[in-house]
Amino acid sequence: MTSTSPGSCKIIVDAMGGDFAPLNCVVGAVQAQKELPGVEVYLIGKSAEIQKILSEKNLAFAADRIISASEVIEMGDSPTAAIRTKKDSSIVRGCELIRDGKFDAFVSAGNTGAMMAASTLIIGRIRGVSRPTMGSFMPSAGGPVTIIDAGANVDCKPRHLVEFAIMGSIYAKEVYGVDNPKVGLLNIGEEESKGNEVSLETYALLKKAKLNFIGNIEGRDIFKGTAHVVVCDGFVGNIVLKFAEGITGLLKHLLKEYAAISFFNKLKVGLFKSSLSEALKSTDYQEHGGVPLLGIKGISIIGHGSSGPKAIKNMVAVAKKMVEHRIVEKTENAIKEYGTEKDDQV
Amino acid sequence: MTSTSPGSCKIIVDAMGGDFAPLNCVVGAVQAQKELPGVEVYLIGKSAEIQKILSEKNLAFAADRIISASEVIEMGDSPTAAIRTKKDSSIVRGCELIRDGKFDAFVSAGNTGAMMAASTLIIGRIRGVSRPTMGSFMPSAGGPVTIIDAGANVDCKPRHLVEFAIMGSIYAKEVYGVDNPKVGLLNIGEEESKGNEVSLETYALLKKAKLNFIGNIEGRDIFKGTAHVVVCDGFVGNIVLKFAEGITGLLKHLLKEYAAISFFNKLKVGLFKSSLSEALKSTDYQEHGGVPLLGIKGISIIGHGSSGPKAIKNMVAVAKKMVEHRIVEKTENAIKEYGTEKDDQV
Repeated sequence: MTSTSPGSCKIIVDAMGGDFAPLNCVVGAVQAQKELPGVEVYLIGKSAEIQKILSEKNLAFAADRIISASEVIEMGDSPTAAIRTKKDSSIVRGCELIRDGKFDAFVSAGNTGAMMAASTLIIGRIRGVSRPTMGSFMPSAGGPVTIIDAGANVDCKPRHLVEFAIMGSIYAKEVYGVDNPKVGLLNIGEEESKGNEVSLETYALLKKAKLNFIGNIEGRDIFKGTAHVVVCDGFVGNIVLKFAEGITGLLKHLLKEYAAISFFNKLKVGLFKSSLSEALKSTDYQEHGGVPLLGIKGISIIGHGSSGPKAIKNMVAVAKKMVEHRIVEKTENAIKEYGTEKDDQV
Repeated sequence: MTSTSPGSCKIIVDAMGGDFAPLNCVVGAVQAQKELPGVEVYLIGKSAEIQKILSEKNLAFAADRIISASEVIEMGDSPTAAIRTKKDSSIVRGCELIRDGKFDAFVSAGNTGAMMAASTLIIGRIRGVSRPTMGSFMPSAGGPVTIIDAGANVDCKPRHLVEFAIMGSIYAKEVYGVDNPKVGLLNIGEEESKGNEVSLETYALLKKAKLNFIGNIEGRDIFKGTAHVVVCDGFVGNIVLKFAEGITGLLKHLLKEYAAISFFNKLKVGLFKSSLSEALKSTDYQEHGGVPLLGIKGISIIGHGSSGPKAIKNMVAVAKKMVEHRIVEKTENAIKEYGTEKDDQV
């Protein structure tokens, strides 16, 4: 029998998800259990493999918190086919347990597409949400920024973007603690008349929505932290997020080239390298856990395939916050309210 | 009478364009004249103001190389209205002189929209080009990358993107000296099946075109230099380019925060700051001049509003290369060939 304590939230970690599964998932889950108060962490996956790591690494984890799932959706599997055929996979089973209300949240660093499909199809959409969305973290001079949609929806209609804005605002408020988050529409100019067809229509809708809409923002405003919530379609969001991932690589390359010029340069770069890494620490996605799937009737968080134990632990921490701050309920209410307003206008 | 030397190319610099006009334009033009062999630099704008700067700064510039234009299109002017009403502006007159074949290239750091509109409407499109485009520089670990379209065309059809790819390839080859430039379609995944509706169709067309098409590339590939030419619509291109502009600002902010932690940190950052600036030098847009407008029957380059003299000088250098490498002629031929191929397939 599971040792539950009243009031604590039950979070399942997919032991089989990610490029370094099950190792990183198990180690991260154990860390989360140890460090986060008020959380009951569960591991789902191949029990024997999980047990093996626990004993090899000499880690303590309650055996009754391991949920057995015999199949694994691999990183390269086709998402929809995989969730149809691998019924006893950790991802499918994890989502079913959330749907059935037995657990509060499910986090996985596994196949992103499969997590999205399973979360949407098994857990189900919140009433009124046209499309579940992913919101992703971006560092800025003004604190954490939420880019929404981060890649779940590539061809979007204005109505979808408004829903993303609503869901992103709730997330920024509840998870990042931003009061009345500023919402910006990512565009190619500040003026209302700027942009493509979709952004022009979206601007008009956002102005009318109950949001702290500050208008269009440009690419350069993201890192300034001009808006707490940056609204865009998943095509743009995904490209910008992945582009940002490449910055550290370019910096390393440029510093290497610079160091190669002279011995003195090499010395300077050698001395400074650790400081730069330290300064860039807040931009590390591992610090911010994974990407939440918003608009579904439960908490589901998707991690980077290369997530380390720290990222897994932080995914649990974010999930906990989402549960405690009742993100699902608040999203449902906000979307309902927006729907009513829209109907009133007709 | 103008002192011309045979074989040299005649490039007009807009003296009135940009946030620091005419000062930076005049100083940059004089530098270009001094440092670039085989170029005759001309200045267009309010003669009295140009002369005033030349005398104040004690700069030598042939009086018969100053072309008088009495009006100025301001940075905030509506582009199409401005080129219709300000007939004697430096931008309108500059483009007319290119159209009339009296000069080889026109560079301006003025109102981007007005330069685009004037170049397209006055100089005219190359036969077969659906939409003139802007290609912009981006640094990478593999050398200069051309992002095309950089913001001229926000809603694009697949055919437009293929034309951008053709024009970008010619530019990368002739201006950056890349043999058989690799062309990548900016997308949200590497697989052919990834992306939005437009990118799926574009992929199919690019495969058939006579280009070194390497398939889809993702945001993180840009800084790696995976492709020499990154094809996208102007909405995505503009957002990515402006986002990149914000990187230095974020770095500064993070280093400042890091320095504030302790005296030792402050010391380290202080010592290293100049090295970092030095290492980042190749990413400075001022080093790469402006953004060329491609697909028109002449050479027209648009500079950043905040261009310094160095950026102006480098715009002249790029313009010279475009003239000498007969970019217009090569673009015309390539577009014609693509059109024929397309007809063959029908």
